[in-house]
Amino acid sequence: MADHFADRLCEAVNTKKTCLVVGLDPVYGRLPETIRSHRQMNDEFDAEAAVDAIFDFCTQVMRIVAPMVPAVKINIAFFEKYLWEGLETYYALISEAEDLGLEIIGDVKRGDVGHSAAVYAAAHLQNPELAGLEDTLAPDAITINGYTGADGIEPFAEVATQQGKGVFVLVRTSNPSAAPIQDIVDADGKATYERVADIVGQIADKPERIGKKGYSNVGMVVGGTAPNVTSTLRRNYDKLWFLVPGYGSQGASAADCVRFCKPDGTGALINASRSIIYAYEKPKYKEQFGSDWKRCIEQAVIDAKIDLATAMQTKL
Amino acid sequence: MADHFADRLCEAVNTKKTCLVVGLDPVYGRLPETIRSHRQMNDEFDAEAAVDAIFDFCTQVMRIVAPMVPAVKINIAFFEKYLWEGLETYYALISEAEDLGLEIIGDVKRGDVGHSAAVYAAAHLQNPELAGLEDTLAPDAITINGYTGADGIEPFAEVATQQGKGVFVLVRTSNPSAAPIQDIVDADGKATYERVADIVGQIADKPERIGKKGYSNVGMVVGGTAPNVTSTLRRNYDKLWFLVPGYGSQGASAADCVRFCKPDGTGALINASRSIIYAYEKPKYKEQFGSDWKRCIEQAVIDAKIDLATAMQTKL
Repeated sequence: MADHFADRLCEAVNTKKTCLVVGLDPVYGRLPETIRSHRQMNDEFDAEAAVDAIFDFCTQVMRIVAPMVPAVKINIAFFEKYLWEGLETYYALISEAEDLGLEIIGDVKRGDVGHSAAVYAAAHLQNPELAGLEDTLAPDAITINGYTGADGIEPFAEVATQQGKGVFVLVRTSNPSAAPIQDIVDADGKATYERVADIVGQIADKPERIGKKGYSNVGMVVGGTAPNVTSTLRRNYDKLWFLVPGYGSQGASAADCVRFCKPDGTGALINASRSIIYAYEKPKYKEQFGSDWKRCIEQAVIDAKIDLATAMQTKL
Repeated sequence: MADHFADRLCEAVNTKKTCLVVGLDPVYGRLPETIRSHRQMNDEFDAEAAVDAIFDFCTQVMRIVAPMVPAVKINIAFFEKYLWEGLETYYALISEAEDLGLEIIGDVKRGDVGHSAAVYAAAHLQNPELAGLEDTLAPDAITINGYTGADGIEPFAEVATQQGKGVFVLVRTSNPSAAPIQDIVDADGKATYERVADIVGQIADKPERIGKKGYSNVGMVVGGTAPNVTSTLRRNYDKLWFLVPGYGSQGASAADCVRFCKPDGTGALINASRSIIYAYEKPKYKEQFGSDWKRCIEQAVIDAKIDLATAMQTKL
């Protein structure tokens, strides 16, 4: 496997023939009945039972999706809910994902000023060299918040580069209230998110960060929900991967999202979380597959891949 | 004790007669020799030994400072370095701090869009109602990143309000590279950090968030290092507490910091981390107290309190 995160992404996207990424945001109450009724996992208010159920569910989801998608994104918030029990589960899932050959994005959205940023970077990107934790792997990449500017971002980029890993910096988020902060335009006509993008772009551009395929290991998170706002980003930051949330439950269309892909299909990872992992709640799939929740998830991945591929065809 | 976080802060600041807060950023390699040479804690690369040493150190520091300061700020980055072992230690320290009667700020800098923000908020502000974790306490307040705007901040404010707890939103950070993002001025003459401050101010202002002393449980993090930039914030946001990093090792003076305090001494918490907890590394204290590291820390707290009190006198 390639040593450079961006090269690995290119390989994975080419092999799986899609830019679709599956996001894991597991909520106990929404897990399939068969898992929740298991005698050792049937108590939402017992930390161990709950994390066992979540681990079981996520592992099964990853086994379904691994042959079909290049990467999974694991949202750590849903694990921190169970404190250290949850964090242990987050890391256990990273090992499972690694065994399944998936690229793993830890959606941790960390961020701090220099001194603490370096500590977060080592904690979340470096495999621990600690007795008692030596079998544990860190994810291939993480998401970070860049509001503190270059010296809050650089420490993450440095550790990622040393470790053959990657970083995605929040540039323009997919939520409704992003605009009043991120889209405000300054006297030079630049929006705040463009200022952040410039800083990320400069950090990404350093020669030691560029892989064989021409991409940097430092990328951006840009929501698919504001296509009119972010339409110039793909053109301006040719060497960056974009991680694009908002497809599916958050309302961005396939066409909105694939505009971040280059004609060869690389350059963007389009994330869908709830619309995939809870596909078995949707009448459309329930009617077809009944209580076979795995088949529902599989079909939702197939449908999303077709939807994105069709949008790519239309775009070209 | 008061049910409202801001009321508790007023009480604590009045009782301890200072706005000084001690920040815990523990790094194994800097712990006192007597702790690191203990036979069960003398291995930096053994996760259990390292967290035991860090727990021992932080507990002793808190016992020294508890009679003298209103609150401690625990930086979770330094615990996440030790993964779930570290997170368990973070929560163990919160319980110790609670027993010592300290207000506890979890410096976690979390932030995400609506859906995930709500999950982070519950994880970090609500005492867990989970079998296996029922003795665990969440901190009295946490720091969060508000780059995603109102719908990323509101879920934290809501949980905090329900729980009698608080939130400090990053408005203007204390690091050198903050300015190219946070100080950029838009066409209306407003800087980005002022836009964020406005949004935080609106959320803080809701009647259910205001305590008996007139302060909100939603406050701001504003670095002490840019006094010329942030001088109008105290005047504009009368009901908000400010958490002020940068005093001590980061170079902000006492005068820079106390401008956020009101004449009665409330309204701001001035944080010093490394300059206090590693006071025993400083020649000034080493010469006076030799290897008595606890006495060094105690004296550093006394000196910082005098420094801040003198600056307050000069200001009035």
